Amino acid sequence: MYDILVIGGGAAGMTAALYARRNGKSVLILEGDSLGGQIATSPRLENFPSIREISGEAFADNLFEQVSALGAEVEIEKAVRIDKQADGHFLVRTEYNEYAARSVIIAAGVKHKHLRTRQDREDLLGKGVYYCAVCDGPFYKGREVAVIGDANSALQYALLLSGYCTKVYVYTLFDRFFGDESLVKALRAKENIEVRPNTNVTDFIGETELEAIEYTDKDGNLCRQKIPAVFVAIGQVPDNAAFANVADLDEAGYIRADESCKTRTPGVFVAGDCRTKAVRQVSTAVADGAIAATNASLYLESL
Amino acid sequence: MYDILVIGGGAAGMTAALYARRNGKSVLILEGDSLGGQIATSPRLENFPSIREISGEAFADNLFEQVSALGAEVEIEKAVRIDKQADGHFLVRTEYNEYAARSVIIAAGVKHKHLRTRQDREDLLGKGVYYCAVCDGPFYKGREVAVIGDANSALQYALLLSGYCTKVYVYTLFDRFFGDESLVKALRAKENIEVRPNTNVTDFIGETELEAIEYTDKDGNLCRQKIPAVFVAIGQVPDNAAFANVADLDEAGYIRADESCKTRTPGVFVAGDCRTKAVRQVSTAVADGAIAATNASLYLESL
Repeated sequence: MYDILVIGGGAAGMTAALYARRNGKSVLILEGDSLGGQIATSPRLENFPSIREISGEAFADNLFEQVSALGAEVEIEKAVRIDKQADGHFLVRTEYNEYAARSVIIAAGVKHKHLRTRQDREDLLGKGVYYCAVCDGPFYKGREVAVIGDANSALQYALLLSGYCTKVYVYTLFDRFFGDESLVKALRAKENIEVRPNTNVTDFIGETELEAIEYTDKDGNLCRQKIPAVFVAIGQVPDNAAFANVADLDEAGYIRADESCKTRTPGVFVAGDCRTKAVRQVSTAVADGAIAATNASLYLESL
Repeated sequence: MYDILVIGGGAAGMTAALYARRNGKSVLILEGDSLGGQIATSPRLENFPSIREISGEAFADNLFEQVSALGAEVEIEKAVRIDKQADGHFLVRTEYNEYAARSVIIAAGVKHKHLRTRQDREDLLGKGVYYCAVCDGPFYKGREVAVIGDANSALQYALLLSGYCTKVYVYTLFDRFFGDESLVKALRAKENIEVRPNTNVTDFIGETELEAIEYTDKDGNLCRQKIPAVFVAIGQVPDNAAFANVADLDEAGYIRADESCKTRTPGVFVAGDCRTKAVRQVSTAVADGAIAATNASLYLESL
């Protein structure tokens, strides 16, 4: 029986574990994918206070070392269900096991939103179609690639790829970017980045690997571009449906809670990107982690 | 005319400046005391995610370097008034100057709460009575000192002082501490720290320098202890009265705002410890800074 079970090992979940351990609570983190969450896939983190520049991966590693040193336990398993038991504790089921805890913090983060294409070529995933340039960009060193998206992730992907690819095409739905001005400026200054505004990528083409993309241009013409790799960065979606029995979800699937991070079920808290909130940043994820763990500790004291 | 004027150069204010500059906004930080705010006086910061251990001063220095490199301007002046002008911009007055800005973020932090004693010996401040052990503790190396308080600051002060003072007496109002269990454990393990629970320090004694303290013990007896220095850590209070014309204050003097950091005046935002909130930590201060700057930037785009 753990005091606090944290679902998700991203910035919010690990910060929750940090605060929980410092409060002397036993902690298990369940992470279904890889530790670090979204930020671990970011090439450069420059807006975390007091750290001028660090890779997302190094940031996640540092945070993991910090919570490990404090004695937080980690299992790489995806939590698929939370059930409150008759005696008040919670049973958290994963694909393989079940764990008992006196309180739960859901910090399940968000997932990459997949681009809907005409032929729904999910079979090309990992074969030319990617959602993480940090992870898969280096395979295309010295070649041309494309990025789809218009916000910070797309801007960062394009900048990163421009460092080792001969050319980066950026497809945006509108004629502007919706990211940090500093990133937009940096992108505009790169000679090997070509922005293709007012375009809509409609299809991925290729037998067993991506060979080309089809898109409509600003005049509505259907065009085709040969390209071996495309990196999609069109946003994120939450993955909270499995927890709707203990927490209210909003229309978009985020868990409803104010900054107290309390869900409708006493003993169940929510932290980070998976919570209904306006500004999703590492800075705001860690605040949620601190608050959720503090309130979970107070909840445990009150039992 | 600045885009965003930030009142306060602590963790919240500097993070607001970081985000504002990355959004391409011109920024002036006004700090009445010294940069870094409360955290700069903390001997050890161990609960900031991804940084295992750092002094509060080094943390503040790193953050300052980060925002300076981005071009944020700083003036060491205390803001004493904010007035909205007829054309919609704000005039922020300091003791010496006035500055015009299109939006304002109040991140004025909190101040040390002073211990009320029978004879109100404010004249002993800096002469044996201190509110910051990091700043003034080293003057008492090799001597006995006292700490008054029962939460994290008091615990940290006592631990720090125990490293170089022969003995540290800790006076607490009740028979328990209200801080992190890890700190309490560390304190209990120190042989040269003596906790005096259920005590109430009622007076500071001394002609021109502190010579002793008077306190009532658990049975109500008035006692006196000779001691050359006492470090008071009994909490903080906000300093927002000057801004009540543009923002609502709660009963305790904090600026009312939810996590959007918006005050009742469009264009005026609040961030960090000076805001009405439940958990005051560096982690939550930086979240406020990020959110306030993001919303201030959106406000400016909407003008």
